[in-house]
Amino acid sequence: MSSPSISEICQFIKDDLDAVEKKLREKTASHYDFVDLAVQHVIEGGGKRLRPVLLVLSAKACGYDGEDAHTLAVVVELIHVASLVHDDVLDEAPIRRKRETLHSKWGNKVAVLVGDYLHARVLSMLVARHADDPAMSILSDATQAMCEGEVIHAYKNGDFNISQDDYLKIVGLKTGRLITASCMIGAILGTKDEKIIQALREYGEAVGAAFQIIDDLLDFVADQEKFGKQSFSDLREGKLTFPMIYTREVCTAEERTTLEQVFNADTEPDSAIEWIEALLRRYRTQAHCLGAAQVYADRAKSALAALPDTPAGRALQQLADYVVSRDW
Amino acid sequence: MSSPSISEICQFIKDDLDAVEKKLREKTASHYDFVDLAVQHVIEGGGKRLRPVLLVLSAKACGYDGEDAHTLAVVVELIHVASLVHDDVLDEAPIRRKRETLHSKWGNKVAVLVGDYLHARVLSMLVARHADDPAMSILSDATQAMCEGEVIHAYKNGDFNISQDDYLKIVGLKTGRLITASCMIGAILGTKDEKIIQALREYGEAVGAAFQIIDDLLDFVADQEKFGKQSFSDLREGKLTFPMIYTREVCTAEERTTLEQVFNADTEPDSAIEWIEALLRRYRTQAHCLGAAQVYADRAKSALAALPDTPAGRALQQLADYVVSRDW
Repeated sequence: MSSPSISEICQFIKDDLDAVEKKLREKTASHYDFVDLAVQHVIEGGGKRLRPVLLVLSAKACGYDGEDAHTLAVVVELIHVASLVHDDVLDEAPIRRKRETLHSKWGNKVAVLVGDYLHARVLSMLVARHADDPAMSILSDATQAMCEGEVIHAYKNGDFNISQDDYLKIVGLKTGRLITASCMIGAILGTKDEKIIQALREYGEAVGAAFQIIDDLLDFVADQEKFGKQSFSDLREGKLTFPMIYTREVCTAEERTTLEQVFNADTEPDSAIEWIEALLRRYRTQAHCLGAAQVYADRAKSALAALPDTPAGRALQQLADYVVSRDW
Repeated sequence: MSSPSISEICQFIKDDLDAVEKKLREKTASHYDFVDLAVQHVIEGGGKRLRPVLLVLSAKACGYDGEDAHTLAVVVELIHVASLVHDDVLDEAPIRRKRETLHSKWGNKVAVLVGDYLHARVLSMLVARHADDPAMSILSDATQAMCEGEVIHAYKNGDFNISQDDYLKIVGLKTGRLITASCMIGAILGTKDEKIIQALREYGEAVGAAFQIIDDLLDFVADQEKFGKQSFSDLREGKLTFPMIYTREVCTAEERTTLEQVFNADTEPDSAIEWIEALLRRYRTQAHCLGAAQVYADRAKSALAALPDTPAGRALQQLADYVVSRDW
């Protein structure tokens, strides 16, 4: 039986997600036509809205059902979208979420600056909140951690010998912290119970790790049409991600030498892609990644045991499995 | 008689400026060695610290002499430095403040991300403040305006026919708003008198315009060794700035056609630089820019008439003239 899709899981919070979409557009509107055009191009690009979904579900699972969850969902999504826009500049990705990326449409300058504009919007939404709101420090810490993770990752990009653990620590900063923040902020809207808040923190950390491992895997196996990105793009950019790190650890010394040559070559690795695909099959890399991601998904589900049984809590359970089974 | 230098003007607030430097380093420290190395490379690059100086002087001129001026001075300088780091990526500038720029030292990725890291630090410093602190909304508005100005400027970069007024509006967003915010925030620390706060707003706007006109001019006339940047770099990047916009408006139709060809050429304009230098001399462009900047400096000084006579107020007067007479 295949797992339900994210839209099936989220059917019962459709009104909330529509409200988040509306507010996303409102909060990013600019008086300046061109700024508005560029920003809406990114916002309307859509995506799974995983962080808003996690935030709204976490809030509901902790008994909160008000509008502030929508506002905070907008903030986390904007932080995420801003980082995507900058990532795409850095990666020179031509396509994201099935649309042309900003920098390929309007050039690097506009893309860097639109990312900065979104950060400015986050700043203004956050400073409008109460000073004692814990969401503010959680989000500013997460934003900082994301940047630190990105800087370290950019710097370590050329390190062929990074371990699975070190890699997961870096992506825990880059991707995990904002996902975790989304869950915690949702929780805090509904409860003061530290046990519950910590449970949703653990849930977020584990879901974040599972999400990243699958994201990395999909770059190697996904159908470009469905996933909305170029496949093998990480490899093309000389990025060593989880599947390759695992494969490098388990393959023979001779294979490792060839892999390192492909990885360090200045040319596009097109000619090597068949060889790499065979290597990944030989070491059952896909199964290893799915297994590793499922361990995290199971850890996420266990953490939820601390929560009362609610539709939102059950949706969070399903989301943990969805993150592993998704094909885009 | 030559005007006093910025360090002569600021001699009596040296202790404050030292405290700002110390806090700048503290607030940008990262647990991660490489992040720290890259960030400190930018911070220690120095610069005039014009925004901290304006903030501290504005505070003192309004009767405030406490530490919060140092904290806010750090915030405005970080917003400024973050925008410089991103500008340098966009402009591909090899040198800034006489040092290698981050992106030429460590690549574009690190530079974009260090800028983002500095923004994250600003976010965390701002969310730690009282919610009713007007500095928060002034700064978040200024940050947004800077981005909007940058996006519009990046988009309008190819517009050969931009007017002096439209140009000054864009740079009013890009440069002026943060300078104005620095003055207003300083004022608000010391006074609730709207007349005084508005006087420092007008002062900031006028100083910002004078500063930008001279900045643009220095790119054409400055000695590279002294100014710390490549000269004619704006022109090389196809950027039309104030001196060229003025010259384009006053020159003959024939000269305008040649100028447009140089401006639109894909090649470096080295061969055309002598011709442009002659054109600038013919139309006394330097004198026009100095005159235009002095009009703003005089407007800034007039605005200060609303303030009581204090050493800080007199230093603000001198700074307005310094902005026009500076040669770097």
